[in-house]
Amino acid sequence: MTSVYIAIVCGLVAVLYGVFTSQQLLRQPAGDARMQDIAAAIQEGAKAYLGRQYTTIAIVGVVVAVILFFTLSIVSTVGFVVGAVLSGMAGYIGMNISVRANVRTAEAARTSLQGGLTTAFRSGAVTGMLVAGLGLLAISGFFWYLTGPAGHAPGDRVIVEALTALAFGASLISIFARLGGGIFTKAADVGADLVGKVEAGIPEDDPRNPAVIADNVGDNVGDCAGMAADLFETYVVTLGVTMISIALLITADSADLLRLMSLPLIVGGVCIITSVIGTYMVRLGKGSIMGALYKGFWTSAILAVPAIWVATSYTLGGMDRPIGAASFLEGASAAGLNPSQITGTNEGSLTVTGTQLFWCMLIGLAVTGLIVWITEYYTGTNYRPVRSIAHASQTGHGTNVIQGLAISLEATALPTLVIVVAVIATYKIAGIIGISFAATAMLALAGMVVALDAYGPVTDNAGGIAEMAGLPDEVRERTDALDAVGNTTKAVTKGYAIASAALAALVLFGAYTSDLHEYFPAIADDPKLFSLSNPYVIVGLLLGALLPYLFGAFGMTAVGRAAGAVVEEVRGQFRDNPGIMAGTSRPNYGRTVDLVTRAAIKEMIIPSLLPVLSPIVLFFVISAVADRAAGFAAVGAMLLGVIVSGLFVALSMTSGGGAWDNAKKFIEDGNYGGKGSEAHKAAVTGDTVGDPYKDTAGPAVNPMIKITNIVALLLLAALAAQGG
Amino acid sequence: MTSVYIAIVCGLVAVLYGVFTSQQLLRQPAGDARMQDIAAAIQEGAKAYLGRQYTTIAIVGVVVAVILFFTLSIVSTVGFVVGAVLSGMAGYIGMNISVRANVRTAEAARTSLQGGLTTAFRSGAVTGMLVAGLGLLAISGFFWYLTGPAGHAPGDRVIVEALTALAFGASLISIFARLGGGIFTKAADVGADLVGKVEAGIPEDDPRNPAVIADNVGDNVGDCAGMAADLFETYVVTLGVTMISIALLITADSADLLRLMSLPLIVGGVCIITSVIGTYMVRLGKGSIMGALYKGFWTSAILAVPAIWVATSYTLGGMDRPIGAASFLEGASAAGLNPSQITGTNEGSLTVTGTQLFWCMLIGLAVTGLIVWITEYYTGTNYRPVRSIAHASQTGHGTNVIQGLAISLEATALPTLVIVVAVIATYKIAGIIGISFAATAMLALAGMVVALDAYGPVTDNAGGIAEMAGLPDEVRERTDALDAVGNTTKAVTKGYAIASAALAALVLFGAYTSDLHEYFPAIADDPKLFSLSNPYVIVGLLLGALLPYLFGAFGMTAVGRAAGAVVEEVRGQFRDNPGIMAGTSRPNYGRTVDLVTRAAIKEMIIPSLLPVLSPIVLFFVISAVADRAAGFAAVGAMLLGVIVSGLFVALSMTSGGGAWDNAKKFIEDGNYGGKGSEAHKAAVTGDTVGDPYKDTAGPAVNPMIKITNIVALLLLAALAAQGG
Repeated sequence: MTSVYIAIVCGLVAVLYGVFTSQQLLRQPAGDARMQDIAAAIQEGAKAYLGRQYTTIAIVGVVVAVILFFTLSIVSTVGFVVGAVLSGMAGYIGMNISVRANVRTAEAARTSLQGGLTTAFRSGAVTGMLVAGLGLLAISGFFWYLTGPAGHAPGDRVIVEALTALAFGASLISIFARLGGGIFTKAADVGADLVGKVEAGIPEDDPRNPAVIADNVGDNVGDCAGMAADLFETYVVTLGVTMISIALLITADSADLLRLMSLPLIVGGVCIITSVIGTYMVRLGKGSIMGALYKGFWTSAILAVPAIWVATSYTLGGMDRPIGAASFLEGASAAGLNPSQITGTNEGSLTVTGTQLFWCMLIGLAVTGLIVWITEYYTGTNYRPVRSIAHASQTGHGTNVIQGLAISLEATALPTLVIVVAVIATYKIAGIIGISFAATAMLALAGMVVALDAYGPVTDNAGGIAEMAGLPDEVRERTDALDAVGNTTKAVTKGYAIASAALAALVLFGAYTSDLHEYFPAIADDPKLFSLSNPYVIVGLLLGALLPYLFGAFGMTAVGRAAGAVVEEVRGQFRDNPGIMAGTSRPNYGRTVDLVTRAAIKEMIIPSLLPVLSPIVLFFVISAVADRAAGFAAVGAMLLGVIVSGLFVALSMTSGGGAWDNAKKFIEDGNYGGKGSEAHKAAVTGDTVGDPYKDTAGPAVNPMIKITNIVALLLLAALAAQGG
Repeated sequence: MTSVYIAIVCGLVAVLYGVFTSQQLLRQPAGDARMQDIAAAIQEGAKAYLGRQYTTIAIVGVVVAVILFFTLSIVSTVGFVVGAVLSGMAGYIGMNISVRANVRTAEAARTSLQGGLTTAFRSGAVTGMLVAGLGLLAISGFFWYLTGPAGHAPGDRVIVEALTALAFGASLISIFARLGGGIFTKAADVGADLVGKVEAGIPEDDPRNPAVIADNVGDNVGDCAGMAADLFETYVVTLGVTMISIALLITADSADLLRLMSLPLIVGGVCIITSVIGTYMVRLGKGSIMGALYKGFWTSAILAVPAIWVATSYTLGGMDRPIGAASFLEGASAAGLNPSQITGTNEGSLTVTGTQLFWCMLIGLAVTGLIVWITEYYTGTNYRPVRSIAHASQTGHGTNVIQGLAISLEATALPTLVIVVAVIATYKIAGIIGISFAATAMLALAGMVVALDAYGPVTDNAGGIAEMAGLPDEVRERTDALDAVGNTTKAVTKGYAIASAALAALVLFGAYTSDLHEYFPAIADDPKLFSLSNPYVIVGLLLGALLPYLFGAFGMTAVGRAAGAVVEEVRGQFRDNPGIMAGTSRPNYGRTVDLVTRAAIKEMIIPSLLPVLSPIVLFFVISAVADRAAGFAAVGAMLLGVIVSGLFVALSMTSGGGAWDNAKKFIEDGNYGGKGSEAHKAAVTGDTVGDPYKDTAGPAVNPMIKITNIVALLLLAALAAQGG
């Protein structure tokens, strides 16, 4: 239990870091009255949007909580509520600090680049540490309560169900927040660009553009709050599923099981500490801005290696003590089960040692590093992919988009190979538990990764405020320089989230098969149930693979439709009030914010419910057409279908979008004719297309994959609770 | 054997129809000297390109043939060569008639719309009947020789291997032809549009554009020859795999087996007759051009129902006589096999009756009808999808592309649902054999479907010739009207090909599992081999799903790169020779044709080899890392991964591209400002993006899926032949 306490303390350290750094930030000067006016308008818009978004989600949440209460248990309901509330909180707090840091970053950038960087990054770090800290507190606090005061054994079904429900709460909120925020930010961004930059020929963030405040609000509610909720979900689900898989797959005595199950928690804890240290290493020095940010990242990652070793050795009581084997076989045969069925494999390792798990976690860290490197390659301005898109822009809009789509398809290859090698290696070392520990190590760095990401919208906003408040050109140049690397760090987070999601989802699928054995042994004992030659497996794979496509279609359509409405609205304001373009009267910013708010809320609901309802509907339809075994087989295959297809859809969308964005930046830096050239116009089109790709449809696939998997687990539990 | 003879006679009827109709066509007036000049330039370019393409493919073909000879057998080598040569021939003859019909269609359109329609459709019908006729002759002739003069029993391994090799020959040629032709046609089309329509502001097919002949050559080598080779492949593989699955899964006495195995042949045969009848029903009457074409299609499809019933009843000697059961169980237990393992399912029907197969074939016809209807919905100008793209064009290039991508993602849903329902229904009726008969019935209509498709490039060319030869405006209006429906019929063929490919590939996967039992029973007897909880299965699924993405990336990049080169070349010609734009001197058409030829040949090789080499490399790598069982499991999963992912990639690309194209046409018809408006410019961008989507990367996924599957079958056979 000491490890759980350590994890809780580390979680509190993260929260304290957040509180302390926030106060430091708030003490910084917030600029002149004009700047504060603008910042207040952004704050107001962001709060109003998030308020309405969370109200809508709360209605869905209450319905789901009631259903869970009646089909499962009170513990599951509580877990769901805790996960949902904290996921919402992570997003809300992130937005709150971000809308205050933006104006302070602009003010700090008046003095120096370093000042702007420090302010923006600190603000990102607050969000990052709160995401990791709240995530760790939620899961370790809940686990402590259930195994301590509530007196359950660590491997009890109630623990598994409670953790699953906690993950479900986090996921459900995050898909709404990711999608709603994503639709808001990109509808405003695309609409503002189309009517401002392209039609009216005014620069980005020009105060005459009636959509400019909505665009800045979007950065905070989508790229900051939505992203924070998403990564909170990823964190909780990954650590949770690792603990669940231990509870399901390893049968050791209670003390050993507690040790193993608290290992993901303490690993998360010590990596929060290395991340906090990392945040202090972000300094400009002689290198680039990206270099300064990477110093922080690499410090956290490299320090994580010895920290994880010490944590593992301490928690498991040595690195080479085998855990699980003996008592497992005993327990399993006592329960009348065949061990190979429980692990779901023929060669899964039933015994794990600290060294094995340590290697798996090292592989997880390596995957993180490789994904960062690959994403940088595909979205950085120094490499072939982005430059090929910029080059293709010379021959027009069409070739820009063609090359961007080609790059987006290509960008799936290397991450897939990395994931495949990691799956094989970790599986060979420690079976499915090994895969889950690799995912845990990836997520242990979440605090740092989120910090890098949340830094982006702050600099984006700072640039907007500098422009609108008419600050000197060099301020805007500094914020632009800070913002440029934000495109890459944002792409990195998404690649990281989706790669870890693929690993976590594979473990969730493993949990599904284990649960099936637990609840419906007669069905699960058929070794050909999940065979690829079972037609219901093929049906499930096809329908699972369809989900990310349909989801992507909804997201893209929503952004296109809402952006079109923004264009109409802005055109109308220009037409009805010629004083706006003349600069003599202020546009009605609030009306545009309202319009986008209503559109985003309306459009997020149906696609978010798609992954929740699909496995349930599939199960009942196939059970009716064939039998219950076919239903379970089809749902299981749907889970893998959604993972396999979702990985490619998400990777291609997020990398492609980042590459398009930076191809535009590369041209704006003076290549191929620079700003205003025909190549630049083509690159703006590519950037516009990439916007909903990378910030709406693509990243929301991550929570979507996991919701489908978690709902399937809950469905099994509910069917079992209802008497099978 | 009578049924095989009937099939051969029907195949000969198709060829005779082709010869007879060609002569009829060639007797039609070929226009004035200027028109004949232009047509001659197109002919010359198309022949030169196809000559070089087939020379290159021949080198690969000879290498593969030698490998097959040494690893398998002489019969397999002969099968491969026959398939390859006939696939090449189908494409070559199609191109040959198409480059002669184009100018005659333009000439006929001088008089009336009906004249143009008849000429263009007859030319398409020649290609269509030759594709189906040659396909049927190849497979039934080969089957007749092996079971007759060569004296093999119908279920012999040698028959299975020979048919597999025949399918491989057809597939290998067709992937090169589809991709090479696709790169050629779209590089020329995109390049010509970008530099002509967009930059120089001259209309499509303006004789001043140096890329205009290349563009017209492309229609013939890509949309006609490439498509014909592709559909030839689809025809041969589908009928072949149905026969293979019968040989592998049904153990009846030799006479019954011969009856069953000749059923796909006679079904193909009678549907050639209904298709020939259908071609005579294509008349304008009071309805639209699309309506006239559909009259032909629906006539063939509806007549096919009684024709298939009669053929089935005749061939099987009654509709209700069970075939397979008794002798199957006997034979299987004699061979020491468990029947459920051989069918690869627990509930697969081991006995089939004529009625069962008839129902499965009806479902196949229904799938064809539904796919036609869905494709028409997603790509026709009368429905929401195309109109939504046109509407989005009003707000710019970006929103056009966003909406187009949204539609392309969405367009995967209904076809997937149709396929899923068909898989479940046919499997419940007659097991995996049922799925294969559904695919056979789909392909039986290939003659008609190809006719509708091959009609498109002829009208496209006719329009080009009318423009270049300065024919009166009303001629161009007529050819444009004929061409507009070509976009939809072309999209229909691709949807049809990919849907049938998904069904055929599922059967191929079934053949893989059966072959594994035949050759490596010790490995295949592990019921968990293909279980989704085997990590090597997951690895195979992920890598299989990657293939269509990588392949798509290659295809898109190739088109983008080659189109860019065309733009540079044309800009250079305009710059160096100002007389071209003034209309006083002729551009150098030949140089552009040469440039595109070289680019297409170079770019087609590596992506075409991707599906050939991937399963082989995966098998040996995984066998080295783990063991041979893991290797077989990974390869099997790769096959399903490539089917699942390829289906979505291909459907989204082909439907999306068609929708973009017709959204442009919809605007050109006078909506949202019509030609020359800002909305039109945005729609041209969307059309450009859609070009390589729908005509290069998307359709080539179809042969790619099947090659991967067939190579896996050959790999098994080769490993077994080499002593395991």
